[in-house]
Amino acid sequence: MSLLVVGSVAYDSVTTAAGSRADSLGGSALYFSASASYFTNVSLVAVVGEDFSKADRKKLSAREVDISGLETAKGKTFRWEGIYDTENLNFRETIDTQLNVFADFSPSLAKNNMSHPCLFLANIDPTLQHEVLTQMNPKPRIVALDTMDYWINDHKDNLSKTIENIDVLFMDETEIKSFTSKSNIFSAAQAVRDMGPRIVLVKRGEYGAVMFNEGNIFSVPAFPVESVIDPTGAGDSFAGGFMGYLSNMNDFSHETLRRAAVIASVMGSFAVEGFSTDRVGNLNRLEIDDRFRGIAGMTYFKPLENEEDLFSKPN
Amino acid sequence: MSLLVVGSVAYDSVTTAAGSRADSLGGSALYFSASASYFTNVSLVAVVGEDFSKADRKKLSAREVDISGLETAKGKTFRWEGIYDTENLNFRETIDTQLNVFADFSPSLAKNNMSHPCLFLANIDPTLQHEVLTQMNPKPRIVALDTMDYWINDHKDNLSKTIENIDVLFMDETEIKSFTSKSNIFSAAQAVRDMGPRIVLVKRGEYGAVMFNEGNIFSVPAFPVESVIDPTGAGDSFAGGFMGYLSNMNDFSHETLRRAAVIASVMGSFAVEGFSTDRVGNLNRLEIDDRFRGIAGMTYFKPLENEEDLFSKPN
Repeated sequence: MSLLVVGSVAYDSVTTAAGSRADSLGGSALYFSASASYFTNVSLVAVVGEDFSKADRKKLSAREVDISGLETAKGKTFRWEGIYDTENLNFRETIDTQLNVFADFSPSLAKNNMSHPCLFLANIDPTLQHEVLTQMNPKPRIVALDTMDYWINDHKDNLSKTIENIDVLFMDETEIKSFTSKSNIFSAAQAVRDMGPRIVLVKRGEYGAVMFNEGNIFSVPAFPVESVIDPTGAGDSFAGGFMGYLSNMNDFSHETLRRAAVIASVMGSFAVEGFSTDRVGNLNRLEIDDRFRGIAGMTYFKPLENEEDLFSKPN
Repeated sequence: MSLLVVGSVAYDSVTTAAGSRADSLGGSALYFSASASYFTNVSLVAVVGEDFSKADRKKLSAREVDISGLETAKGKTFRWEGIYDTENLNFRETIDTQLNVFADFSPSLAKNNMSHPCLFLANIDPTLQHEVLTQMNPKPRIVALDTMDYWINDHKDNLSKTIENIDVLFMDETEIKSFTSKSNIFSAAQAVRDMGPRIVLVKRGEYGAVMFNEGNIFSVPAFPVESVIDPTGAGDSFAGGFMGYLSNMNDFSHETLRRAAVIASVMGSFAVEGFSTDRVGNLNRLEIDDRFRGIAGMTYFKPLENEEDLFSKPN
């Protein structure tokens, strides 16, 4: 099944403990498609400005992402500048946001982009996410959505309305607690599932992720990386692995969903190992397989057989 | 194999979001032995004051813990009073600590307590932990140690000296980072293993735990509980499950260690479901089996077979 992503393509200027990178290729749709492109055919819908370089356009084509829906508008490309805390990479400060051409982004899907069976609504205004959803024809087999604290805090009603119409929700732990006003992720995920989505993925950074699916809970650890270079795009790469794999498999069984969540964790771990898509955009299959096996090795223990006693009573 | 624990028995006064409990039975050795007693024969060495009630002594005997090493000294039992943050149960404020008889505690093992093959040095002064270790004869087959931020911050040299002589170290995530001055648990665990202990268990509260053993990493989630009543003693109950199971199995293979870590997580989850040992001290075997199976169900995914492709390339 082919996969459509609608979101942002941006130039990011990022400072982390590992260094700085100015005007590097970023944005939610960019990271998502770089990650998902290993698994399936991805089409991207986004907007860039006249300053978007040919080299960066080439980078996207190199990953065989269909960028016929990448609109070039008058003005400059969306720019974000941020500094990550050197002690705790979960904290970052936004130094500057220039919406530029993104301010007037109103995605209008071309005919060939309306009929993808898999849709990912990357982090943009929930009203736009909803508009994209209504343009799809026929209705996609699976629709997933990611968002961020800004929309949760200031556009909650619009966000809730959009979430009612999707199948898979990705949220950070702090985001889902704040969105649902629940103190733990288990009741928070239940509250979201009551709104509509049947699958909820709660991202917990270095602690991995928990997937909720029809009362079925699956916990996957983060793959341990030697050094985190830049956390930007980890969540989008996580979602890209998940949706890319599902799109490839064309199957939504528990078993496939669990493997998809493991692959999501794997792709998130690659994303943080380089600035921009330096690492997650330049993988080979063996590296993906290796980390998948690595997480299996980190989590496997001998289950209790039917007739087996976990322990015999001490005398 | 029998198991000896040396640590504290206390009267705790605790306030959490769920309520308050005054002068309830607590202490590191108390929680540990309540948890371990499901799996093996436990002997406890600690000190209480003349105010220690017969009912509380009975509670310990009811769990078939050998309390012949529970000394009664002149004065009052160790008392601790604390309040847990209502939003984040990982934070607590100590309101009052009265060492009382614990101030002069200098454990002198009776002959029958010197030869246990399994030893757990619960959270007390590392100098005392070391003294206990030197009294053991013959050397135990396995020695484990738990500690807390106070000893890490103010008695680091003594603690390090004791840690050099043990096999298994339990530490919280923040504790092990602070103890080793490392920013992630993977390098922190390696630093501890370089000091001597071959097994390191990093406790991460609601995120579960990670076990390090000869370069082998095992990640176990926390078992999700409906509501946390009182987190006091969760770490000691975790250690009690781990050491109790190993002591029962008399085997330190990777496979057994991993099951022990899962049982540790299970016992920690019971501990937080009640004040004192209300819950962790009143379990039946089926409840333990059920949560063991629960964690298996939460973590299992289909591993990659030898000749299997994780995914086929998209066209």
